[in-house]
Amino acid sequence: MITREAARALDAADPLAGIRARFAQAAEDTVYLDGNSIGAMPLNAPQRLQTLMLQGWRDARRRGWSRFDWLEQPWILGDALAPLIGAGPGSVVFADNTSVNLFKLLAYAWRLRPERPVIVTERHMFPTDLYVAQGLSRFTDGAAQLRLIDHPSELQAALSPEVGVVFLSLVDYRSSFRWNMDHTNRLAHGVGALTLWDLSHAAGAIAVVLDDTAADFAVGCGYKYLCGGPGAPSWLYVNPRHQDAAWPVISGWMGHADVFAFEPDYEPIAGVRRHLTGTPAVLANAALAAAADIWKDVNAEELGRKHRSLSDLLVGLLEQRCSPHGVRISSPERYEERGAHITFDHPGAGRIVQALLERGVVSSFRKPDAIRFGLSPLALSHEDIWVAVDRLSTILVTEFWREPRFAVDGI
Amino acid sequence: MITREAARALDAADPLAGIRARFAQAAEDTVYLDGNSIGAMPLNAPQRLQTLMLQGWRDARRRGWSRFDWLEQPWILGDALAPLIGAGPGSVVFADNTSVNLFKLLAYAWRLRPERPVIVTERHMFPTDLYVAQGLSRFTDGAAQLRLIDHPSELQAALSPEVGVVFLSLVDYRSSFRWNMDHTNRLAHGVGALTLWDLSHAAGAIAVVLDDTAADFAVGCGYKYLCGGPGAPSWLYVNPRHQDAAWPVISGWMGHADVFAFEPDYEPIAGVRRHLTGTPAVLANAALAAAADIWKDVNAEELGRKHRSLSDLLVGLLEQRCSPHGVRISSPERYEERGAHITFDHPGAGRIVQALLERGVVSSFRKPDAIRFGLSPLALSHEDIWVAVDRLSTILVTEFWREPRFAVDGI
Repeated sequence: MITREAARALDAADPLAGIRARFAQAAEDTVYLDGNSIGAMPLNAPQRLQTLMLQGWRDARRRGWSRFDWLEQPWILGDALAPLIGAGPGSVVFADNTSVNLFKLLAYAWRLRPERPVIVTERHMFPTDLYVAQGLSRFTDGAAQLRLIDHPSELQAALSPEVGVVFLSLVDYRSSFRWNMDHTNRLAHGVGALTLWDLSHAAGAIAVVLDDTAADFAVGCGYKYLCGGPGAPSWLYVNPRHQDAAWPVISGWMGHADVFAFEPDYEPIAGVRRHLTGTPAVLANAALAAAADIWKDVNAEELGRKHRSLSDLLVGLLEQRCSPHGVRISSPERYEERGAHITFDHPGAGRIVQALLERGVVSSFRKPDAIRFGLSPLALSHEDIWVAVDRLSTILVTEFWREPRFAVDGI
Repeated sequence: MITREAARALDAADPLAGIRARFAQAAEDTVYLDGNSIGAMPLNAPQRLQTLMLQGWRDARRRGWSRFDWLEQPWILGDALAPLIGAGPGSVVFADNTSVNLFKLLAYAWRLRPERPVIVTERHMFPTDLYVAQGLSRFTDGAAQLRLIDHPSELQAALSPEVGVVFLSLVDYRSSFRWNMDHTNRLAHGVGALTLWDLSHAAGAIAVVLDDTAADFAVGCGYKYLCGGPGAPSWLYVNPRHQDAAWPVISGWMGHADVFAFEPDYEPIAGVRRHLTGTPAVLANAALAAAADIWKDVNAEELGRKHRSLSDLLVGLLEQRCSPHGVRISSPERYEERGAHITFDHPGAGRIVQALLERGVVSSFRKPDAIRFGLSPLALSHEDIWVAVDRLSTILVTEFWREPRFAVDGI
């Protein structure tokens, strides 16, 4: 049996253990396993926002643009994130939301391969990814053709010479299945296609290597494992070899070569910044900046190792203490094939998630019978995982043993 | 001469006079005339943000979506704004930034008139409007054709049968020239074209009537006269007759008919909400909500009348006290042809704006010699205008009379 002491010992040896204390705790005994939904709040985020409100908005107003770095935050934040996703400086910016950024980069990538009009994607991706692709296809009167695969094993067969873009979520939002990014980039490049990755359920939690796997494009969420706050701006990555290849589809003034020249003709700025659109989200960026202060102190390899440690611990505990009570882990067995969260099934999942909430464990439920535990290596300790499973196991033992119907349904 | 007492008398008769006190004042003796850039901060905005940070982000996290109205804010805010721009309920949402919304609605409008591929716009519009149109044209390989006019008088001649969209800024960001929206909508509709208005320099300041002038589409800034905070989300309006006409070009999950069904196929929700894209900007919307509390207490006709009163007062004061010292008003003479700000020229404009700042008057400078005073009827009193011109006149008299070179250059 894995004991609480064993979990504590892992924390004692964890080089990132000190990071957890830089996030606000709602209550001493609550374990938040919803980093896959909204990540923890950096302790100093409220103060940063207040300073912005009073010294920036109230007092400086228009002069805020020159007194503070409001204009530069999109790439300052991007450069702060870059090391955690294996990107070099000048390849990442924060702007807009995930759906808008997916549209921007999907349209950009698709236009780079005019002789290869097919976009390959997954039928089971997070819906907004699919919707954005469907919208692009419709807007182009079908010139952008979608080819949907039902299972990862179908990818290779789908890669005909007409394919220009392979658009995938690195981590499945339900099962947590993780693609092999390196292998997939090679497969796509082998037929002359480009890759666009949605890293929403990966960045800030698991090891991600963009430059060295020659990924072409990526987009991710700012408010999940990156802890940027509810509705935080999204980030986007463009591999340096594509940065100056074309105009962005939304050609806004923040992507102009000379923002304040007010020239009547659009001319994209060199580099990734051309994908900035309009005025940056100043308030939201101040909250993100509080998170960026933390990212800067995190080593990417240590982050990946800690996530693996938390993930393996959770799997071990679930198997030991919960499998006998009808829990079945549906995330892949091999760590390399799992993303940031762990998903497990139980026929009473909806009620279990509610019971967990009442006992101070915040997780999330997906119909019909899945529970997700999101594992933030920034904000969680190994002991947190132990406590969460201990409570889960208590619920299973005390509340669900009396209702064998659930166990029967679960077969 | 218009005296300070006369200005005070206008304030005493102003039904909106009490609104001014609902905005935070940076310093008692500073007059902010930069509402055309970043509007005043509602007094309760910092508290709203703090509550969101602590009760929402820190404590509720994922549960914030069900405990609070984070998801609904885009249309709650839209409905709060609607009366101030002559729109009915269900026609306005807040989302994304102005550039992104312009792209979305320009692409949508253009697609509604496939047999009329020409977009008429102005060469002197705010650059991001032009850039967005240029980007759309390029993305469609020139299928969306731009036809630029140099002067408002050229509009009628430009309206050939190929024109599908007339895309204009209601108010010019430099001169403050204002189009006649009613007349222009008629002209456009007369040739079968649709109108898309950028109302960034109008909404929240001057009378705007969308439904009753049969305007087709509009977009505006949230952080200028609407006082939504630096980088606030933008709003967009779709006339009810077009709301269900087509898919939005950026088909995101927040515009889906059933957001949380996670269906693999996109199906737009009925109405204006289909133009929502991804996760709403929760933090920024909380600041906007503080402004919306104020909008709700403002009658649109009183707002328009107060703006006219401030604008006429400013023009009168500038003519009386500053024209003899080289100031020349470049905004149109007739109120109906002027937008929210007043622009005047002086050869020493750059230095004057700096001198005004030092004396507690925040205005803005545009190369080569223009000064803009943005007139927020929400946050300014008539006396504020008097004080600002009094200080300007002092600067002109005490600093610029010694340098006749400026006056000579100004001829």
